[in-house]
Amino acid sequence: MATARAAYFTHNSRFEVVQRDIAPAGPGEVRVVVSYCGICGTDIHIFHGAMAHRLGARRVLGHEASGWIDEIGEGVEGFEIGQKVVVRPLDHCGSCPACAEGHTHVCYNLRLLGIDADGGFSEFWTVPSFTVHALPEGVSLREAALVEPLAVACHDVSRGRVVPGETALVIGGGPIGILVAVAARSAGASVILSEVNENRLAVASRMGIETVNPTETDLENMINERTGGKGAEVVFEVSGSSAGLKATTRTAAVRGRIVMVAIYPEPPEIDMFQYFWRELELIGTRVYEYRDYERAIEMIARGEVNSDMLITDHYDLDRIQDAFEALDSSPTAVKTLIEVAGG
Amino acid sequence: MATARAAYFTHNSRFEVVQRDIAPAGPGEVRVVVSYCGICGTDIHIFHGAMAHRLGARRVLGHEASGWIDEIGEGVEGFEIGQKVVVRPLDHCGSCPACAEGHTHVCYNLRLLGIDADGGFSEFWTVPSFTVHALPEGVSLREAALVEPLAVACHDVSRGRVVPGETALVIGGGPIGILVAVAARSAGASVILSEVNENRLAVASRMGIETVNPTETDLENMINERTGGKGAEVVFEVSGSSAGLKATTRTAAVRGRIVMVAIYPEPPEIDMFQYFWRELELIGTRVYEYRDYERAIEMIARGEVNSDMLITDHYDLDRIQDAFEALDSSPTAVKTLIEVAGG
Repeated sequence: MATARAAYFTHNSRFEVVQRDIAPAGPGEVRVVVSYCGICGTDIHIFHGAMAHRLGARRVLGHEASGWIDEIGEGVEGFEIGQKVVVRPLDHCGSCPACAEGHTHVCYNLRLLGIDADGGFSEFWTVPSFTVHALPEGVSLREAALVEPLAVACHDVSRGRVVPGETALVIGGGPIGILVAVAARSAGASVILSEVNENRLAVASRMGIETVNPTETDLENMINERTGGKGAEVVFEVSGSSAGLKATTRTAAVRGRIVMVAIYPEPPEIDMFQYFWRELELIGTRVYEYRDYERAIEMIARGEVNSDMLITDHYDLDRIQDAFEALDSSPTAVKTLIEVAGG
Repeated sequence: MATARAAYFTHNSRFEVVQRDIAPAGPGEVRVVVSYCGICGTDIHIFHGAMAHRLGARRVLGHEASGWIDEIGEGVEGFEIGQKVVVRPLDHCGSCPACAEGHTHVCYNLRLLGIDADGGFSEFWTVPSFTVHALPEGVSLREAALVEPLAVACHDVSRGRVVPGETALVIGGGPIGILVAVAARSAGASVILSEVNENRLAVASRMGIETVNPTETDLENMINERTGGKGAEVVFEVSGSSAGLKATTRTAAVRGRIVMVAIYPEPPEIDMFQYFWRELELIGTRVYEYRDYERAIEMIARGEVNSDMLITDHYDLDRIQDAFEALDSSPTAVKTLIEVAGG
């Protein structure tokens, strides 16, 4: 049997790149040759020891993959060999109450490919065909590696019910924060991104996003001035910081929506009085739905995402260990791609 | 000049009932002879020392009033002498950002009549005509004293976007909790009311509301059993208790809405992980809008509110001191009305 490279995470911040058998596409499956696969913040948490119980003894991580189809399993229709695709790495049970309501992305038994099952840091990735989205002509496989994080951002903007003409404040300017700003802008909002890291501020500025450093400028005053004392109709909390969380209820307009993009493992204190006083809404959001993937692909196809500015670093799959270690110390990295088979 | 009785709250848990001059209705105003005025939980907080800075040296409290018009000021149209009415006790500035958006009920400079200005515990109450809602034939002035708290409940149900067929859990069964249950039922929800006080449970049961005592029955299990493991689509937190707040995120369905009816002066800890995991929404809510008053009047006119079961106690205006003191100790009081001029 032919073999190909796969990078296994073996815990304790170690990867092992090995040759493994290339599995055939089973019934209902598609086999993808992975071109690029981005490193997600979640991957970095896992690298540092998080979610170990979900990984087994070793796991191929990676869930931000682009590539092309090289084998189509029995019963799969609508795809062809050589087609460029991205994978929406969610496998749902189909029978829980969430699935019954059509909310398969928050399935009670959701499996994330690349965490609960092997993922995209491998040359061949066999996935259920319902996870595969075709790419249109003109979208490169390199920029398509941004579809997954951009779909997160599109889902956040959709959950925030952004309407053209509204002011959107994005708190936190990592890769997801910047993409939320891009997606909110695409939805017609006037966007301001708040971030403390000057390098990230520079990247966002080069992408045409208005930025503010809240350690230098009073964020509440700035938003009030910009909105005639009204506040932002929608605030995205992407920083996961205590200061960011506090800023949400100080900058939101009457009836403003506060979308909680960052994950809080421990219950934070929330200024509930402001939720009462201004009739605010707090909106939880998790991964993405089918339509968010389609929307993200569309945005990239239209050239609305300056992928060259976001993708700051590339590493060959053989150097995945170096890639993860560099992310711990690099002051300039925004999005790092692993070049798996290239393309 | 003619005089009439008014009950002034003079701080330190004391009322003083005096004869005062009857003020004429000025331009844009209507003078109401107050028949009944209910005691609100907020009034009880004030009785115990809260909000003292908003009251001046003395204040006529009371904002749950019904009565009839006995004088109409210059420029007021659409009303007639003798007409039965209720007062929506909100006076807005008309020029702040909230008013500009039409959200006058959360006006930045909102004045609550009966707190920031004199209220309904007086035989004559002169109010801006835009605060007055006419009552239809067949609604008694006694039951109309429930319009204000019922409008709170209607607003909560509206904010919760309740859809017929949904399961609504109401946590906390005081007067507002019971009315939220009634309003959610009227909106087509299947309602369960959770309350620890056996007397309140009995009142709610007699009104045909399904009840549960969470100190005897595991609330999370009960809701799961009732909904096939799905949870409640909408949860109203009316208790203001830590246990009630914790129960919200344990009983809400995927994409469930949690409406925060209780007021939390101090920021509570919120289980934000569940907001992420199940894509929950937290919705702030404050007082009511014009349409909530109209809806509340309609519900009472249709006989959907068993007012006789809710109105447990009556006191003449002269005995307002006794009424407030009794509410501190009565195990059976649900809603106490002050009979002002009667009717």
